[in-house]
Amino acid sequence: MRKHVESELTPDNHRMEAFSDGVFAIVVTIMVLEIRIPDTLAFGTDRAVLGDFVTYLGTYALSFLVIVNLWTSHHYLLFTVSNPARTTLWFNSLLLFTVTLVPVATRFLGMHPTSPRAAAAYGSVAAVCTAAFMLLRSHAARTTRNDVHRGIHRRVIRRTWVFLAIYIASVPLAFANIWLAWVCFVIVPPMLFLPVIRIPLNEAHGMHRQVLERSCP
Amino acid sequence: MRKHVESELTPDNHRMEAFSDGVFAIVVTIMVLEIRIPDTLAFGTDRAVLGDFVTYLGTYALSFLVIVNLWTSHHYLLFTVSNPARTTLWFNSLLLFTVTLVPVATRFLGMHPTSPRAAAAYGSVAAVCTAAFMLLRSHAARTTRNDVHRGIHRRVIRRTWVFLAIYIASVPLAFANIWLAWVCFVIVPPMLFLPVIRIPLNEAHGMHRQVLERSCP
Amino acid sequence: MRKHVESELTPDNHRMEAFSDGVFAIVVTIMVLEIRIPDTLAFGTDRAVLGDFVTYLGTYALSFLVIVNLWTSHHYLLFTVSNPARTTLWFNSLLLFTVTLVPVATRFLGMHPTSPRAAAAYGSVAAVCTAAFMLLRSHAARTTRNDVHRGIHRRVIRRTWVFLAIYIASVPLAFANIWLAWVCFVIVPPMLFLPVIRIPLNEAHGMHRQVLERSCP
Amino acid sequence: MRKHVESELTPDNHRMEAFSDGVFAIVVTIMVLEIRIPDTLAFGTDRAVLGDFVTYLGTYALSFLVIVNLWTSHHYLLFTVSNPARTTLWFNSLLLFTVTLVPVATRFLGMHPTSPRAAAAYGSVAAVCTAAFMLLRSHAARTTRNDVHRGIHRRVIRRTWVFLAIYIASVPLAFANIWLAWVCFVIVPPMLFLPVIRIPLNEAHGMHRQVLERSCP
Repeated sequence: MRKHVESELTPDNHRMEAFSDGVFAIVVTIMVLEIRIPDTLAFGTDRAVLGDFVTYLGTYALSFLVIVNLWTSHHYLLFTVSNPARTTLWFNSLLLFTVTLVPVATRFLGMHPTSPRAAAAYGSVAAVCTAAFMLLRSHAARTTRNDVHRGIHRRVIRRTWVFLAIYIASVPLAFANIWLAWVCFVIVPPMLFLPVIRIPLNEAHGMHRQVLERSCP
Repeated sequence: MRKHVESELTPDNHRMEAFSDGVFAIVVTIMVLEIRIPDTLAFGTDRAVLGDFVTYLGTYALSFLVIVNLWTSHHYLLFTVSNPARTTLWFNSLLLFTVTLVPVATRFLGMHPTSPRAAAAYGSVAAVCTAAFMLLRSHAARTTRNDVHRGIHRRVIRRTWVFLAIYIASVPLAFANIWLAWVCFVIVPPMLFLPVIRIPLNEAHGMHRQVLERSCP
Repeated sequence: MRKHVESELTPDNHRMEAFSDGVFAIVVTIMVLEIRIPDTLAFGTDRAVLGDFVTYLGTYALSFLVIVNLWTSHHYLLFTVSNPARTTLWFNSLLLFTVTLVPVATRFLGMHPTSPRAAAAYGSVAAVCTAAFMLLRSHAARTTRNDVHRGIHRRVIRRTWVFLAIYIASVPLAFANIWLAWVCFVIVPPMLFLPVIRIPLNEAHGMHRQVLERSCP
Repeated sequence: MRKHVESELTPDNHRMEAFSDGVFAIVVTIMVLEIRIPDTLAFGTDRAVLGDFVTYLGTYALSFLVIVNLWTSHHYLLFTVSNPARTTLWFNSLLLFTVTLVPVATRFLGMHPTSPRAAAAYGSVAAVCTAAFMLLRSHAARTTRNDVHRGIHRRVIRRTWVFLAIYIASVPLAFANIWLAWVCFVIVPPMLFLPVIRIPLNEAHGMHRQVLERSCP
């Protein structure tokens, strides 16, 4: 009986995906609204203005990478949550809220790339996004009935602590030396391309592992 | 014959969901376009400016919560309307129209948090959204052939009257004391987390009920 | 052979729907970005400013209705085009292009509600949208293999000529008397709620007809 | 075993499509945000202002065509990539990044249609988009297991080199004579309507070919 009622009442994850895709797509794209090639560059040459523009473009590229990374992980994560409970929707909404703050911090850092406060704001937002993602993932790990998925989630979470630590560290570092904060921001995205950290080799399914490490999180 | 023609002419609810998801996602995200960390905070400290910014951010967070709540309810609601008639599309469009007014009211309240008129505008928009949602839901309750769904809709509507009353009350309260209006705005979203009000216990399916109360509206 | 190759090469209409839904949803929502409750209304009262704001809001509501009407028709139309050919994609893109001009004309008319030129611009854009829609629909009527669908398309097109004529008429009328143009804009959307014009009653399937008239275009 | 694990870990291409559709739809639509009928045209006549506005509108129409072309190709392309690997997601993200730069270049060119630098910027962005698309397509050609699809991809790529060459050529041409650059921008979109270049006729499946040439890329 209960099973029957549940299936009548819990929709699949399709709309959660669609809503999230919408928010990610808009967040990524509205950052472009702020990017304007300065009109003075149309006919004159102003090295300072050009420099500012290139910096802004670079900050945008960095944030694009961060959000696309989050989206990719979100894509694989929701794939493992086929019938989201109400709680899952809430964790997802929390993540989306933090993601919408990225353009705000990006604009501030892009306009003031040498301001320790701007870097601290950017680092904080990135840390909050990462933390919200970990919450969503650990919720998924708790609720899934699929052992393979749970195992992957646990390993990915362990790795994500590293990223969270780097982003948190960037906040005080920004006030010590602004370039250290920039180093933090720049090194995280490429690290996501590394395969998930290998677990003791004596585990049975070697090939299985490899597949996970390549295809998963 | 008629049945056959109908199935040939009434699409399923997929695109209504997609269009609505798009509108909800954009409404939630364009509010961010208005949020800018004031440039003066990059290097200097201006407590008044910082205060204004934090207030604005808080108003955004509040509206984000309101819209995500609406989206979540919409998600569960449309799930029960698998082949929407033309009328359903119209009720849905009416709801979307009211939802698009939220960013307008949010900006006004965020810029003028102590203005009774801004609070009244926000309260009115929130009341209109709630009313439009009730219309859509009571339409769904009238047209569904599924008794479980109809029962849930009826109970949820009863609860929604409370929220509507609070939002309507906020309009005169704003002119009496602006903080009372803010209290109205802040207490509604958490109330949505409460399970739907329990109905007399002598009803048969106890467990069934519980499931409803947890998973539904 | 050919059949087989075709099925391997022609995707279904899912993404055309998704892309169109996105464009419609964004067009409807970005008009809101332009709506700002004037700051002077927060504490003072300025009847002229309030009047302008209400006019702007009214223009937005009108355009919202126009676009939602287009979306609803598009929803029913694409439902009959399950495997769109390349040509269909192009007619659809043409329609989307004209739809994206609606916010431009809306803003101009909203800011200058008494300007004959603004009304003429609005009327022209509405006429162009209607014409693009008729092109898409007559293309669908030509290519469909389903006689019921073709019959509906033909009847709807006949009705749409009336709307097109009204919008075209609004352009010269705007220069004669601006209020006549406004009458044109306001009367079209409600006319869409009228059932499709009835065809001679001696046709066989009476009930069948009724269903069409209620559910279709 | 491996197969099993893979199917459990690689989602289908649905969300990649949805995210891309979102980004394409937003990119196409936000360009409209910049288009404003100049207020001075509401009651007065200013030929210079009108000329600027028409130029801007033309640039927008051109970019709309470019992006809709990209979307249409993307639509057919992803159709052949049913279970995207992580690498495919990255090539797709790279393409989306370049596409988000189109509104930036469009605005600059629309504001300064006679500036060689603006034309060079527009040509560079168009070239980069085309190149990113070729990367995604050649990745798809490498990974697909369907020979018909691979054959089409290869032929389309060959044709795309022509477009890439034209866009790259527009950059130096802009500095020689700005109109030559404009010619480059205007001739590419119509060329996409040409059927894919015909391959020696002695190949077996004549009809098969025709279908491909009409329906594919």
